[in-house]
Amino acid sequence: MTIDETHDPARESWVESANGHADFPIQNLPLGIFSRNGDNPRGGIAIGDMIVDLRALVLSGLLEGEAREAASAADSPSLNAMLALGAGPRRELRRRVSALLAKNATEQAQVEPLLVPQSEARMHLPAHVGDYTDFYVGIHHATNIGSLFRPDNPLLPNYKHVPIGYHGRASTIRPTGAEVIRPQGQTKAPTADSPSFGPIAKLDYELELGVWMAVGNDLGSPIPIAEALDHVAGITLLNDWSARDIQAWEYQPLGPFLAKNFLSTVSPWIVTMEALAPFRRAQPARPEGDPRPLPYLWDEADQSEGALSLELDVFLTSAAMREKGMEPLRLSHGAASNMYWTIAQMVTHHASNGCQMQTGDLLGSGTISGPEDGSQGSLMEITRNGKEPVELPTGETRTFLEDGDELALAGHFTADGAVSIGFGECRGTVSPART
Amino acid sequence: MTIDETHDPARESWVESANGHADFPIQNLPLGIFSRNGDNPRGGIAIGDMIVDLRALVLSGLLEGEAREAASAADSPSLNAMLALGAGPRRELRRRVSALLAKNATEQAQVEPLLVPQSEARMHLPAHVGDYTDFYVGIHHATNIGSLFRPDNPLLPNYKHVPIGYHGRASTIRPTGAEVIRPQGQTKAPTADSPSFGPIAKLDYELELGVWMAVGNDLGSPIPIAEALDHVAGITLLNDWSARDIQAWEYQPLGPFLAKNFLSTVSPWIVTMEALAPFRRAQPARPEGDPRPLPYLWDEADQSEGALSLELDVFLTSAAMREKGMEPLRLSHGAASNMYWTIAQMVTHHASNGCQMQTGDLLGSGTISGPEDGSQGSLMEITRNGKEPVELPTGETRTFLEDGDELALAGHFTADGAVSIGFGECRGTVSPART
Repeated sequence: MTIDETHDPARESWVESANGHADFPIQNLPLGIFSRNGDNPRGGIAIGDMIVDLRALVLSGLLEGEAREAASAADSPSLNAMLALGAGPRRELRRRVSALLAKNATEQAQVEPLLVPQSEARMHLPAHVGDYTDFYVGIHHATNIGSLFRPDNPLLPNYKHVPIGYHGRASTIRPTGAEVIRPQGQTKAPTADSPSFGPIAKLDYELELGVWMAVGNDLGSPIPIAEALDHVAGITLLNDWSARDIQAWEYQPLGPFLAKNFLSTVSPWIVTMEALAPFRRAQPARPEGDPRPLPYLWDEADQSEGALSLELDVFLTSAAMREKGMEPLRLSHGAASNMYWTIAQMVTHHASNGCQMQTGDLLGSGTISGPEDGSQGSLMEITRNGKEPVELPTGETRTFLEDGDELALAGHFTADGAVSIGFGECRGTVSPART
Repeated sequence: MTIDETHDPARESWVESANGHADFPIQNLPLGIFSRNGDNPRGGIAIGDMIVDLRALVLSGLLEGEAREAASAADSPSLNAMLALGAGPRRELRRRVSALLAKNATEQAQVEPLLVPQSEARMHLPAHVGDYTDFYVGIHHATNIGSLFRPDNPLLPNYKHVPIGYHGRASTIRPTGAEVIRPQGQTKAPTADSPSFGPIAKLDYELELGVWMAVGNDLGSPIPIAEALDHVAGITLLNDWSARDIQAWEYQPLGPFLAKNFLSTVSPWIVTMEALAPFRRAQPARPEGDPRPLPYLWDEADQSEGALSLELDVFLTSAAMREKGMEPLRLSHGAASNMYWTIAQMVTHHASNGCQMQTGDLLGSGTISGPEDGSQGSLMEITRNGKEPVELPTGETRTFLEDGDELALAGHFTADGAVSIGFGECRGTVSPART
């Protein structure tokens, strides 16, 4: 990992809202797709409350070489062409934009007119998703859920050898703010004689990270673990909305299907691998007795910096709380260090059979829960599948999500000597089933 | 279903190779994407040993109205734009092309120069695949495989209520002829203490139908079963190559992943819903005691014509057989009537939670096996997971596929009073693992 002047904690921006911004100080500079007033969606970089319009920046003549190449490729309704250029042009663009936005930059007067207020922009998916894969690397989540579905056998024998994953649905991934329509589905209560169809009762969220692929591989050519992160553009927050009652009835023997594919929400800004360099950490040592991964999944460098110093929060606001002007209730506070497998291990395992990865593919981490109460990344875990309701400040209770509930994920990278950065918004509000 | 003059069994073509052609008589006219001499891939229609070049046909001025609209939309490296037009324009193009190719058509001299020999063409995927879903509707396969993985519990309680399916990998779908590189993977023999990584031993095929979606739905808007087939363009053969040893180790709890996503092969011609109209049949009655599907999955019209009169064959040719000039060995002969759920039920269930389907999505049926020996659609079933090897005419034996083996699927629609039609080629040859 390279730490350079773009990470300098002393660097401030002439965009005043960036200085002290919880998500988008000048040390972040995440990539996204925005539109304004119904014009064509195109690439931008977040800075404080503003967006640098990359099309306008190219036209300004302030970019050269690889930085210009990257920004030009981002003049598109998706970042796929830009991401496919790989880390070099992405890094050059970051360095140039960081310099242009830095306090005392001589180009301030030229750049200032190229900024778009985020309040006037609509955010889109940052990339066209080719395939979406969801992993299961949150070991405490796997244990918690496993104990609910299989009390005798919570963590299966393969878990510590294989980064377990499965394919999800690409067509239903949406950026923050998308309506969460309560799905209908076929469910069967354990006590019922036969299944029925209708609006589901157990609507849940899942707190995950999303990994965006920058550069793919050819069909039949695995990705060695030492090269895995060269294929990754960066990460976002991911809420893999889940219908627990559909899941319980449908998931055997082929895994979750309609329980998961009605919607997944991402935060719309890709926090790049460059931006998160100061927050990489040694992967926590495996507990005594756990197997060492097979050689194709083992890389000393990955072990020494494959984890992230990243705190994760989940907030719930019911309709009644909104009406009363109450603050959101924090449902959980956890950490990305609860990932049993690293991002590099996920990528390398996925391609180990020759499976072709492509620019814009999205990999979910699976739900990230901590081991203790208060750190669990789904209501299924928090309420023990509905047995222990959560009390809201209004006196309402929740076992699963109700119509009108707003659920928001947040994540912040923190490290000594570094300015904290975040993802921005990843939220959705539940609307009634369309019967 | 509409039977019109395009299905007339007396109709012959002035393209002589079409008359009596096993797959592509004038009654079929399937849609595909071809290229010749490295030029841009574009849409075509198969007739006998030839292809009607739809770009050239548009330029000829022989098309009007919706037929011209459909053919113009097919002038693209994928049929997505054409398929998105729906059944109306597709049917008009079929009727016009059928008339132009019919014996004694006055336009023969104008159309003849627009034909491309299939022997000079390279076939591509017919559409850009958005999402790929694999169902599990072959009930005998589900029972056979279930009894190998779960001897006590072969068919799970949900099977007869839910069209079980799971998401597959879109990026690794290829047209016939794609190299089948033996994958590497993490496997663990039941007797081994720990897993290992290397070329897999249990490479298998799966005989399936592929359903191509023509018209999608909006996120949150289910597809009523009476309208389901309006969303379907047609079908192909699908070989869902499988690594049984990876599958056994990885598949719990989230389903197959790397066992299935290294390659899936389709026949490159879409046999349209219009072409297969004469071969639609009543869905076989459910056995006494089986539950009646819930109302959202039940439609009398679908029950009366939701099955297909379609015979399916699988052929194996080892390298030694090829060297000796031997004919392929037929591994199985079965029928599509072994599908427990109809195509309409698959589509409607998939969208029942509001999941968005899109033009170009591919739905696999799952492996189609018959109940008796000789009709099973995978080597896993035929050899009882390797316990009962198949003998080849060379004296070689096979439990699973060996390097150099060529595996080919074939399917033919047959009905009294109709000319039989087929899919063309769906084959692949196994090459050694790249270690």
